[in-house]
Amino acid sequence: MPRKILSDLRIATMQAADVPYGMVEHGAIGIEDGRVAWVATVDTIPSDWKSVEAEQFEGRLVTPALIDCHTHIVHGGNRAREFEMRLEGASYEEIARAGGGIVSTVSATRAVSERELVETALPRLDRLIAEGVSTVEVKSGYGLTINDELKMLRAAHRLEKLRSVRIRTSYLGAHAVPPEYKGRADAYVDEVAIPGLEAAHAEGLADAVDGFCEGIAFSPEQMARVFDKAKQFGLPVKLHAEQLSDLGGAKLAASYGAISADHLEYLGADGITAMAGSGSVAVLLPGAFYFLRETRKPPVEGLRAAGVPIAVATDCNPGSSPMTSLLLAMNMACTFFRLTPEEALAGVTREAARALGLADEIGTIAPGKRAELAVWDVTEPAELAYRIGDNPLHRRIVEAAP
Amino acid sequence: MPRKILSDLRIATMQAADVPYGMVEHGAIGIEDGRVAWVATVDTIPSDWKSVEAEQFEGRLVTPALIDCHTHIVHGGNRAREFEMRLEGASYEEIARAGGGIVSTVSATRAVSERELVETALPRLDRLIAEGVSTVEVKSGYGLTINDELKMLRAAHRLEKLRSVRIRTSYLGAHAVPPEYKGRADAYVDEVAIPGLEAAHAEGLADAVDGFCEGIAFSPEQMARVFDKAKQFGLPVKLHAEQLSDLGGAKLAASYGAISADHLEYLGADGITAMAGSGSVAVLLPGAFYFLRETRKPPVEGLRAAGVPIAVATDCNPGSSPMTSLLLAMNMACTFFRLTPEEALAGVTREAARALGLADEIGTIAPGKRAELAVWDVTEPAELAYRIGDNPLHRRIVEAAP
Ligand SMILES: [Zn+2]
Ligand SMILES: [Zn+2]
Repeated sequence: MPRKILSDLRIATMQAADVPYGMVEHGAIGIEDGRVAWVATVDTIPSDWKSVEAEQFEGRLVTPALIDCHTHIVHGGNRAREFEMRLEGASYEEIARAGGGIVSTVSATRAVSERELVETALPRLDRLIAEGVSTVEVKSGYGLTINDELKMLRAAHRLEKLRSVRIRTSYLGAHAVPPEYKGRADAYVDEVAIPGLEAAHAEGLADAVDGFCEGIAFSPEQMARVFDKAKQFGLPVKLHAEQLSDLGGAKLAASYGAISADHLEYLGADGITAMAGSGSVAVLLPGAFYFLRETRKPPVEGLRAAGVPIAVATDCNPGSSPMTSLLLAMNMACTFFRLTPEEALAGVTREAARALGLADEIGTIAPGKRAELAVWDVTEPAELAYRIGDNPLHRRIVEAAP
Repeated sequence: MPRKILSDLRIATMQAADVPYGMVEHGAIGIEDGRVAWVATVDTIPSDWKSVEAEQFEGRLVTPALIDCHTHIVHGGNRAREFEMRLEGASYEEIARAGGGIVSTVSATRAVSERELVETALPRLDRLIAEGVSTVEVKSGYGLTINDELKMLRAAHRLEKLRSVRIRTSYLGAHAVPPEYKGRADAYVDEVAIPGLEAAHAEGLADAVDGFCEGIAFSPEQMARVFDKAKQFGLPVKLHAEQLSDLGGAKLAASYGAISADHLEYLGADGITAMAGSGSVAVLLPGAFYFLRETRKPPVEGLRAAGVPIAVATDCNPGSSPMTSLLLAMNMACTFFRLTPEEALAGVTREAARALGLADEIGTIAPGKRAELAVWDVTEPAELAYRIGDNPLHRRIVEAAP
């Protein structure tokens, strides 16, 4: 494939370096076969590339393309009326009687075809792509029957065929106990969650295995049974953990070498230690914190002190984070959780890649990495986290690799 | 001008009615001479319009075009580095030494030409327009010399020539005491704020007169002197009031028949009573509440009980609300302040129009009103406030009037 040079850029490589953002000023990037061949200053372009014409970017900032490492963008229905009823003063009983709560999303997801799931997910995906996102994690978890979970995963994979984007799927059969298994979570795990994982794995539909470890969902013991099956298949695990209480979910996940534990508002010192030991990424989801009006914040200082990598994602879902802006998630991570803008940007690039097990391929601008870049109409990289509700993307660049 | 019919719409007229949102189902809108001629159901279109071809909107929701009734979109520079320094742990002294705070925006605004102010404001304006906004209020207040205040107002008016949008300007000379008047606020009012208002009025640059009544800015007595001059010119007044403390600013403004009092986190019972008596609109600014991490919320229940109209705006400004999404302001007004989605939508349409003294022209879909509409790819009007970081605008319609 032809060589390309992108020139006259401020390059936030996001590589570990002794300058903030791993910044290369007056930079150029060489691209070959869909990968970054080199990163240099404009006056140190390799001599054997001198004949390649360079595209000029007039001093713009370039970052790695963004990565949304935790979403539920595939789902049926929306919960706008529930949101409205709550604000109009409806009680939880009234909302439940009107079919509200996660059950409403499960019903809506079961009621539609794979094709309809794809059609309703596409506008959400397009919003993310418009912000320079190249990679989106998508979870199942609103089907809660074997067939409906597979339908969700197939819809997620289908998105990759319709847009220039990388989709990573997580099987989330252990998301909630559906009404037909009410009070029988163990039976649901045995009869649906684990057989569903087997079926998903047999079709090659699951890149990872996720769960929701919480009093209102599944216990650590139940999650362990799902994770045992994941390990048997060689699939990486991750977990919605310590969002509403501390059940030791992150510690359990770490014991399985989890690639990430997500939410973590109630994470304690032992959970931090376990995550540091396992190399799990802490995925912070400020959209859900905001929408649910939580007050307990994840232990950012403890995570930093222990060297736990921190990622940031939208958690896009209809019940607790109907958010389709990763830039806004960055702003909220800074505003609510006091991440620095550099940490927020690392959280949607380098650390998000790590949270998906893709650190060798994407997340920084470095030789050998995929040429997936976002060029911005901003001067300071801090502007990406500072602006609220803006989208200063100049161009998303996603080069095909052989 | 030719007649037009827009048909097959769910029409959220936002007129007072006994149905939520003043909704007309299966509706059609007749437009003539840039104004709404009638609103009807599709089967009650006036007989003398039968020959007019109707454009079909496939059941989409239409609302009045949105109105951002409180912004500072014209300004120099940005404060992203200040935001970053704060998050990196810099003290207020360090930030001040690095030139941070409102002084940095004043310096940056003074340093640039009217043309540069226009160029940097346009992307912010375009973000608002992309969300279906037809009318934007723009304040001066970062020049703080007579010439620089006039420069800001001229830039604001210039925006109207460059985009299909209505700009309403507010003269905000009494925004802050500039460094050269430190400790001499009275002298600043006499020597700059009031003569600047005279100059702005002489050029026809000010549609209204605003101020910042706060311990760190101007006292009620100082504001009264500015408002006296405004009254002398017949200009409506408004005020940044009770944002950080209760100085009785809203009450003062009400005594001048203010069209609005804005922020209002610390508004007390007497302020509410005064606003109800004067018909002033309460403009809530959740972006600033969020960005400054305030905890004290405006007295929404008290405002409702007293019948004070409530508007919502972005407060787009570099220091306390670098926000360019009015839809996000609606979501934050619901999430933080517990407005209902219907109140939030009224707050950026009907009540925002009232806050600009434009209630006879815009803000609802009704015969005689300007044909300024927003058509949305949503089913439920509550979705507009429910979604976070999305923009489901299908089409903005702004018809020219003779
Ligand atoms: Zn989730
Ligand atoms: Zn303001």
